Amino acid sequence: MSRVTARRRVVRLDGADGPVRRRGGEEHMAAEEPLELRIGGKPFTVTMRTPGDDFDLVAGHLAAEGVLAAPDDLVRMKFCSADNGCSSTAYVDGEASLAFADGDPLNIVDVTLAPGVELPEERLRRSSYVTSACGVCGKTSIDAVHAAARWPVAHDDGKVSAETLFTLPDRMRQAQKVFAKTGGLHAAALFTADGELVCLREDVGRHNAVDKVLGWALRAGRLPLREHVLAVSGRASFELVQKAVAGGIPVLAAVSAPSSLAVTLAAESGLTLVGFLRGRTANVYCGSERIID
Amino acid sequence: MSRVTARRRVVRLDGADGPVRRRGGEEHMAAEEPLELRIGGKPFTVTMRTPGDDFDLVAGHLAAEGVLAAPDDLVRMKFCSADNGCSSTAYVDGEASLAFADGDPLNIVDVTLAPGVELPEERLRRSSYVTSACGVCGKTSIDAVHAAARWPVAHDDGKVSAETLFTLPDRMRQAQKVFAKTGGLHAAALFTADGELVCLREDVGRHNAVDKVLGWALRAGRLPLREHVLAVSGRASFELVQKAVAGGIPVLAAVSAPSSLAVTLAAESGLTLVGFLRGRTANVYCGSERIID
Repeated sequence: MSRVTARRRVVRLDGADGPVRRRGGEEHMAAEEPLELRIGGKPFTVTMRTPGDDFDLVAGHLAAEGVLAAPDDLVRMKFCSADNGCSSTAYVDGEASLAFADGDPLNIVDVTLAPGVELPEERLRRSSYVTSACGVCGKTSIDAVHAAARWPVAHDDGKVSAETLFTLPDRMRQAQKVFAKTGGLHAAALFTADGELVCLREDVGRHNAVDKVLGWALRAGRLPLREHVLAVSGRASFELVQKAVAGGIPVLAAVSAPSSLAVTLAAESGLTLVGFLRGRTANVYCGSERIID
Repeated sequence: MSRVTARRRVVRLDGADGPVRRRGGEEHMAAEEPLELRIGGKPFTVTMRTPGDDFDLVAGHLAAEGVLAAPDDLVRMKFCSADNGCSSTAYVDGEASLAFADGDPLNIVDVTLAPGVELPEERLRRSSYVTSACGVCGKTSIDAVHAAARWPVAHDDGKVSAETLFTLPDRMRQAQKVFAKTGGLHAAALFTADGELVCLREDVGRHNAVDKVLGWALRAGRLPLREHVLAVSGRASFELVQKAVAGGIPVLAAVSAPSSLAVTLAAESGLTLVGFLRGRTANVYCGSERIID
């Protein structure tokens, strides 16, 4: 099995030719897993990434930060297991091993810099990565989300009809006055289960658009957002599922694909995750009992 | 003028009906500026965002982090100016002021939490935001990039023909075997000025895909990437321009829109920034002298 894609079960909603039909199936999706970067054994940053080319990712991140300029600036990179024991696994270009012998995923890379290669002062880092670890295997990240969730969504009674679901992207786009001007903004739109638009926010960053919706709801005293649907204009990442769960929103519907870790977190949280919501078709990755005919 | 969009000059390349024509014009684009979040006067995090609904953004970010659960958890939010003096400017829903009287942008929000509302331990934060400030007005961020650039691109002699440019997105997509499987991955592809594909990398995160390309180049001893073109599958943000500059790449071509701060940084760095590269049309936001007929 490749670590770049993952296979997940899916319920396909298809209303293209009339009444909505449901078919079960399987889908390949982009894998998303956390990668922790350590320098000299010390945690430096964590990013959610698609596994593969991890040594390139680490080297490139440090080059973009101005730390590395030439191959010799880098003495060694190696994968470590989570218990801090660093493996001596040699990196094989293109195809690294899938996991350590004990099943630990290859999600920690420890870098040894050449003498004289300096790290930037923390205040000068331009990294968009998480600076402190939230847990390096997906499982730990998911546990952290569960622990932080104030309003579990698993038992939310909200139901939304497939017909209502199909209308959401168009209505979100119509409400995006700015979108028409720039073509460059992500949107997040909050709807009731009946499809009433409650709040729309936009941003160059997908996560910011969702934060703006959550913040509107918080300030309006409307958290948790039980029996609501959050529609987003792009992909569904781990982070967006986390934010939906944090707001007590039971249904997240994305116009594009979810990542593997988004599906895992949604399934374990009892959230309904819809992807590829386009025209009169959609894929439901988990929680399909909330989507009614 | 709205702070949500910005207007920039653009050179439009149009080869739809035959030989490439160039027209000058203006374009609205999504504004991108840094926002620093302070809690009790202390810097907490910085995010690049589209200005507008900033108090919602801040409240929502803290709700998603599990800090806030109800309106009363938040005593006050106010904009500050960069010299640490906090303004008492009242927030007006929907339309905040555009700037302080002295022209400082509204890019710092200071939050006062209610007694008993706790911040998460740093190691439990799930934020994707930058944790330490790289400079809160765009100007400071840009200065930081200039200071860190090892290989200025302004005098790079690379030229790429419009005809070559038009071929890049298709060739990037053809090379994206994984894309066909998932529809969920961003790509970054490095080409020579003659259009030869040198390196392609994919990831759920746009910035990771670019880091993977830079890391490949670093490890191969090929930095700086003079006279190369970096093509990316999505939008061009400030961060992607920064990474191109860090790799010494003179031309960045994006399939979708750039942000305002991406254009500003590209112009000040002497980078050629191409957006909306689709079919036989493209927009050149700066450095159009490198695009030849």
